[in-house]
Amino acid sequence: MTKFVAPGIHLLIDFWDAQHLQDIAHIETALRQAAAACGATVLGVHLHSFGEGAGITGVAVLAESHISIHTWPEIDYVALDVFMCGATDPHKAVPVLRDCFEPAKMRITEHLRGATARQ
Amino acid sequence: MTKFVAPGIHLLIDFWDAQHLQDIAHIETALRQAAAACGATVLGVHLHSFGEGAGITGVAVLAESHISIHTWPEIDYVALDVFMCGATDPHKAVPVLRDCFEPAKMRITEHLRGATARQ
Repeated sequence: MTKFVAPGIHLLIDFWDAQHLQDIAHIETALRQAAAACGATVLGVHLHSFGEGAGITGVAVLAESHISIHTWPEIDYVALDVFMCGATDPHKAVPVLRDCFEPAKMRITEHLRGATARQ
Repeated sequence: MTKFVAPGIHLLIDFWDAQHLQDIAHIETALRQAAAACGATVLGVHLHSFGEGAGITGVAVLAESHISIHTWPEIDYVALDVFMCGATDPHKAVPVLRDCFEPAKMRITEHLRGATARQ
């Protein structure tokens, strides 16, 4: 029997010429606001700063999967992932994150994780 | 001026008919072994179990980005991400994770994050 299984929607979000990439408090707020916009529950936010002038890396662990962030302020670039399952809608994170980081250019790709017919 | 920027390699790994998807100690070991195989530095491992018979969700935050895991034991499926920058090689995580979770079927897609010409 073949079943179609799609546990989650995963958005890979790249922002170029973005702002606030060294501001850890701003980033935590952005992740929490993005999760809330999607209807997701935050289990924990774990961020690490590499120091003055350097990037910030980390994740919001969600009951519905995760939002990750890795910033490269030296090239004004940030890589975000929004991976959510259940009744949440990860697309609702996009305008929130865009407002928070003000990119001049962005790219988003969507991946249906687990979305393959099983035998 | 156009610059080519590729801060990181991001592998999306889907395993079907996988094992050990409710064993949080096994999963922490798997993430740490996968990071070590790639030459990455673990800043912290943050895992959450949804209880008996349910999945585990979480992440290893790395100095070089992250490894995330979300398991669905009810369908024997696990979604892993290995996102690394710098001198690390995320592909070296794959055989480690395969040995740890013993999937009957797998799919891996590679994404070059930030790999777009900037104006």
